[in-house]
Amino acid sequence: MINPVRDCLGRPFRLGMAGGAPPSTIGPVHRVASAMDQRFELVAGVLSSRPERALAEGRAIGLADERCYASVEAMIAVEARRPDGIEAIAIVTPNDSHARYVRMALEAGLDVMVEKPLCNDLGEARALAELARRSGRVVALTHTYSGYPMIRDMRARIRAGEIGAVRLVQVDYMAGGIATRVEDGPDAAKRWRLDPAVSGPSLVLGDIGTHAHHLVGFLTGEPFASVSADVGTLMPGRRVHDVAQVRFRLAGGARGRLDVCNAAAGTSNQVSVAVFGETGHLRWEHRNHGRLVHANLDGDIRIIGAGQPNLTDMAKAATRLMRPGHPEGLQEAVANLYCGLADDMLARRGLMPTTETLTPSIADGVAGLAFVMACLESSAAGGMGVELGRPRETA
Amino acid sequence: MINPVRDCLGRPFRLGMAGGAPPSTIGPVHRVASAMDQRFELVAGVLSSRPERALAEGRAIGLADERCYASVEAMIAVEARRPDGIEAIAIVTPNDSHARYVRMALEAGLDVMVEKPLCNDLGEARALAELARRSGRVVALTHTYSGYPMIRDMRARIRAGEIGAVRLVQVDYMAGGIATRVEDGPDAAKRWRLDPAVSGPSLVLGDIGTHAHHLVGFLTGEPFASVSADVGTLMPGRRVHDVAQVRFRLAGGARGRLDVCNAAAGTSNQVSVAVFGETGHLRWEHRNHGRLVHANLDGDIRIIGAGQPNLTDMAKAATRLMRPGHPEGLQEAVANLYCGLADDMLARRGLMPTTETLTPSIADGVAGLAFVMACLESSAAGGMGVELGRPRETA
Amino acid sequence: MINPVRDCLGRPFRLGMAGGAPPSTIGPVHRVASAMDQRFELVAGVLSSRPERALAEGRAIGLADERCYASVEAMIAVEARRPDGIEAIAIVTPNDSHARYVRMALEAGLDVMVEKPLCNDLGEARALAELARRSGRVVALTHTYSGYPMIRDMRARIRAGEIGAVRLVQVDYMAGGIATRVEDGPDAAKRWRLDPAVSGPSLVLGDIGTHAHHLVGFLTGEPFASVSADVGTLMPGRRVHDVAQVRFRLAGGARGRLDVCNAAAGTSNQVSVAVFGETGHLRWEHRNHGRLVHANLDGDIRIIGAGQPNLTDMAKAATRLMRPGHPEGLQEAVANLYCGLADDMLARRGLMPTTETLTPSIADGVAGLAFVMACLESSAAGGMGVELGRPRETA
Amino acid sequence: MINPVRDCLGRPFRLGMAGGAPPSTIGPVHRVASAMDQRFELVAGVLSSRPERALAEGRAIGLADERCYASVEAMIAVEARRPDGIEAIAIVTPNDSHARYVRMALEAGLDVMVEKPLCNDLGEARALAELARRSGRVVALTHTYSGYPMIRDMRARIRAGEIGAVRLVQVDYMAGGIATRVEDGPDAAKRWRLDPAVSGPSLVLGDIGTHAHHLVGFLTGEPFASVSADVGTLMPGRRVHDVAQVRFRLAGGARGRLDVCNAAAGTSNQVSVAVFGETGHLRWEHRNHGRLVHANLDGDIRIIGAGQPNLTDMAKAATRLMRPGHPEGLQEAVANLYCGLADDMLARRGLMPTTETLTPSIADGVAGLAFVMACLESSAAGGMGVELGRPRETA
Repeated sequence: MINPVRDCLGRPFRLGMAGGAPPSTIGPVHRVASAMDQRFELVAGVLSSRPERALAEGRAIGLADERCYASVEAMIAVEARRPDGIEAIAIVTPNDSHARYVRMALEAGLDVMVEKPLCNDLGEARALAELARRSGRVVALTHTYSGYPMIRDMRARIRAGEIGAVRLVQVDYMAGGIATRVEDGPDAAKRWRLDPAVSGPSLVLGDIGTHAHHLVGFLTGEPFASVSADVGTLMPGRRVHDVAQVRFRLAGGARGRLDVCNAAAGTSNQVSVAVFGETGHLRWEHRNHGRLVHANLDGDIRIIGAGQPNLTDMAKAATRLMRPGHPEGLQEAVANLYCGLADDMLARRGLMPTTETLTPSIADGVAGLAFVMACLESSAAGGMGVELGRPRETA
Repeated sequence: MINPVRDCLGRPFRLGMAGGAPPSTIGPVHRVASAMDQRFELVAGVLSSRPERALAEGRAIGLADERCYASVEAMIAVEARRPDGIEAIAIVTPNDSHARYVRMALEAGLDVMVEKPLCNDLGEARALAELARRSGRVVALTHTYSGYPMIRDMRARIRAGEIGAVRLVQVDYMAGGIATRVEDGPDAAKRWRLDPAVSGPSLVLGDIGTHAHHLVGFLTGEPFASVSADVGTLMPGRRVHDVAQVRFRLAGGARGRLDVCNAAAGTSNQVSVAVFGETGHLRWEHRNHGRLVHANLDGDIRIIGAGQPNLTDMAKAATRLMRPGHPEGLQEAVANLYCGLADDMLARRGLMPTTETLTPSIADGVAGLAFVMACLESSAAGGMGVELGRPRETA
Repeated sequence: MINPVRDCLGRPFRLGMAGGAPPSTIGPVHRVASAMDQRFELVAGVLSSRPERALAEGRAIGLADERCYASVEAMIAVEARRPDGIEAIAIVTPNDSHARYVRMALEAGLDVMVEKPLCNDLGEARALAELARRSGRVVALTHTYSGYPMIRDMRARIRAGEIGAVRLVQVDYMAGGIATRVEDGPDAAKRWRLDPAVSGPSLVLGDIGTHAHHLVGFLTGEPFASVSADVGTLMPGRRVHDVAQVRFRLAGGARGRLDVCNAAAGTSNQVSVAVFGETGHLRWEHRNHGRLVHANLDGDIRIIGAGQPNLTDMAKAATRLMRPGHPEGLQEAVANLYCGLADDMLARRGLMPTTETLTPSIADGVAGLAFVMACLESSAAGGMGVELGRPRETA
Repeated sequence: MINPVRDCLGRPFRLGMAGGAPPSTIGPVHRVASAMDQRFELVAGVLSSRPERALAEGRAIGLADERCYASVEAMIAVEARRPDGIEAIAIVTPNDSHARYVRMALEAGLDVMVEKPLCNDLGEARALAELARRSGRVVALTHTYSGYPMIRDMRARIRAGEIGAVRLVQVDYMAGGIATRVEDGPDAAKRWRLDPAVSGPSLVLGDIGTHAHHLVGFLTGEPFASVSADVGTLMPGRRVHDVAQVRFRLAGGARGRLDVCNAAAGTSNQVSVAVFGETGHLRWEHRNHGRLVHANLDGDIRIIGAGQPNLTDMAKAATRLMRPGHPEGLQEAVANLYCGLADDMLARRGLMPTTETLTPSIADGVAGLAFVMACLESSAAGGMGVELGRPRETA
């Protein structure tokens, strides 16, 4: 399982990380996930802008003292002079810093894993994509859900025609992170999100809407053709968006809905996606991420389980525990994204053939921003339909 | 449980039924449900417009030969002359006949249980409501889902403030009845629905959209203030609507979505409704109709089960099997609607105090038609928001 | 669906009922279930031994005053002299009265539906079976679970070889009815069960163990060959058994376990049964009675749903709502048992061919008692295996 | 979360691994799990007894060439002479080699993580325990299920009295690994298990029965007092046990059942455990390992979810992703066992206070063997009860 290349690879790529110190949970996830398959080795980091804390937190995760930096600029500059300097960078800092760090990384010739959203501005996103194209470097985006084996199984089955032509897509992402007035609370990790200058033009769309948007394209292979949206706030007096209700059409004509909310009291990152085709539908829920539901016209419901012998090859390749019933989790999903990044990096170096990797790319990031902006435009116009220009290429 | 009145009631009301012969499934449901609590006794019926078949089918359900009629007109006229004639009528005929039969019944002084939708035209619906008001008779509407005990429990909890102010409502009704090209098939029971002249201005909205619409008002007590809708067809070339995607706002400001489809391959009348409030949410699914899910801000999920001692009084009153774990079903839900109708009939006769009954009324039928028309208007205008005039009174 | 015979049957059989007045829940279930398909009409009853209450309760369920009796003896004697007297009797009285009433009914030429257990004594059970054989009358036993359509689907699939030879059976019945010290409480309906003189040699085995035992034979078609049991009490100081843990072997060599408890705090009549064969297993849970789970060696899990087109004929014949997603419940399961009784009664009268009916018979009642006695013998001997004599015939 | 000690620990412990080369799945799990929290660093290994393959596989997981050994003896001897030699060893070899390697490790002063079962012989197990005691070294046992956060939550709640005194325990472990005739197949990883000389006195009891046995003691804190068992084979002609049905009593008087099978067609390592107390019960299933079900006498069912704020401290301490809804998996469970081992190792070195760790110990291994032998004795005696000598101390 997992890309066999890792077994013949001489050594892991050297990775630096920007951000991710406690109380971040996503920092440790990137650390464990990148190392899980020995495709990357974390050797440098910027865990704080305060040198003392940067050193302490860097030591705590096993970095050598001299590779605990207090700025991304410093890390990139100093590492570039080392013979064993970093080859890639993971960016897990607040949204408004993504563009700057991605740019710096690309200019220094590094490959990149960046947390979504790619950045806060569509023009900026396009410029980054152009820079990436010119640089020949890879920019991977952490759209975690696309790393789950059963989502990949779902994708493979849709594309193999197991439900016929796609007619209707329903994706919901209900979260409760800001269901209370965190504005008044002590949780800094949540508070930066509530500053529009940091979190971008639409918190809920950038934070989780882009996840949902990416899933739809990842599964169906079709770009969005148009959207009709209502974006706003559930929590009275809030300065950022916490709810978005979107209807859409895909390029192939299928209808869809995409509802996201991060102020839904009592929910826990509940992502669910259903794709209805001519002859049946497939459904996946984050909460039961190891199961895929396939319902047919004859009324049977089939539960396809992670680690089972009847998975598609695409799902098997993303599975470590091919012993059915033994659960994987989020870290393995992110590790799958890192495997794709490593494959791309090897391909660029001519060490393995170039293949379609399933790891989200900078093109997905641009498409995500375009989706966000179209939703905001539609919402401002009372829900009128907005076309999404030239369809992006979807893998 | 169940309304204690039935125990002191001298005798059941005499009921006539229009429609419901095989292969109808809803006919037998009304027959069993109306009799279940001895509130009604089926004594007359119009099972066919062909006299021979009317007689045969009437006999098969135990009617006396002379009370097997071949037209509703005949049944109403002849029964009116009997000292033991029918006091109420159940109308389970195709949609386009509802208005005519309701009118005839009211004019004959009968109380009515009519399958949804009330009728196919908003003006007609309003006229029927006015007629009902003048006649003093009850017109009950078979919005089945409002009869389930756990939906009533959900209603009671929302209204008691268990989740705080309502902020977001999500209701989906996914069905697969016409997921194939039934247009070409032999199933007559399905085919009448595919004739717009019979099924009304929008098949999917009339057939199941009105159920979903009613549930929202039933649960929250708030009328719809506005809708933005996209109504159309999933099945290429179909002459009737089979999908509708609706965003809405309630009078109190809460947002909502209502998605209905009866061409969703692999689904089975899957109704689900979630109401999110300030401090948690409640969720119910038809598929697990005996369970109500209550999730709170603290992360706990509480499953409230039918027949349990901790139900609200409203749910207990709608439950026959107060032995937890012993399942009721659809027939009991419809029976609860008949109990409400009987209570209303007793109240009108001064035999019990007038109370708020939970059985859907003709006002709900009018509101349902208004909702359908507003959705069609919005959809025709590219999804623009449409206001719903003067809010109706919701019980 | 449901036996088509009912449609051509001239009239329902006339039924009398012994027991079932409030607060009984099983009384109303029998009343509704027997009438649901118009196979029986309840015309007489013994709702109390106090004449005044017998009259009041009888009236409340619609009986004519002169057919509200205060003793079973009186009902049988008086009804026998009426030209329209009862043809069958439903016995829903406490366990220790079953034998006497069954005997009286058979001697009067009545057919019988009796709540399980058949009686409290194995010798008595055998004598009743012999009496039934001589009388030519039918004694049906209310093993409710065998009436659920999906249990019948499971039976049909096992017998059709869909999981290969049966190797292992697991059945659990966990209930919480006496999880508290009801001995000290006011609930009379529960208290009679706590008197061994009334509830029989082993409360938990008679009350729910016989249900579990019957299910095993019903599904597999194999009688029990031997048992090893530990029977006792969870509640300190209790005079009756509330827990039994049984291992068994079937005649064909399969292993099994049967665990029953009615003092399991927090449970709600949770019956589950799994049958493992060579090539897969089938699993049913009361809590999700409309679904059957079929898991195969290839890892797929298939959910077979009530009302779906791909059910076995046996399940379809037991289903009223052949519209998938529309739930039936306990009353329909019991109604299916009454349909079988009516078919047997018609067959005896030569009005329809004799067929294998699925309604539990007096032979099942005798086998149930034999099982109870063998478990008690094994438990008294420290869990040693006890053979179950001559295997009974299973349908 | 996770033991805060890791943050102040100077460096990870150096670990060697015996076994675990492809196609082993448990090898990679130990590798990732031990490294996840930077408590261990894998620096040496015996991946094969053939030097060439040992080198290739060792390189593949990142070992230095000179630390890829072809025998455990060599690894222990050579590493002992290195200043940076291994401090602990993970033993993931076939069962019959465990005892020898544990002994060698202890004699060399190493701490040990060994896969269950500890060994194949009770006398040997006791001797190893005595050796461990004298050596002062830690022997941890990989009873994976005790590492899941929600199992630890269940333990904490039981011990805090949330369900009152324990009355009944039900644990099932149904697996399908040898549901087919793997005897005839090519899968070497499965075949060694089918040789009794390698897999020990009872395959099913050693392989998964000890897991189930450990869970009971882990959760309740009570040792087994007696067992009554039936141990055998479902697959005709098989030389090793593949099914065991066990009734038991705990030292405190509670009853229990423990059913394990690794030839159950269509199952996937389905572990479930329910503990019934005076006032409710708790239930956990491997398949939904992130949820704990708590049912009370009042009928409410409460679902406690991983990562939620209302977990017990014990569960929080075992959780990395304290963002509800984000799933962990098996690797995190095993990582939790490694954290306990590291804590014990630190405590022994005086670097942190000695605390009760939750990682299974060699005492658990001895108790597991004693359980296996008692079950075999009972089964041979026709299911007679067998006492389990002097109760072991359970943490």
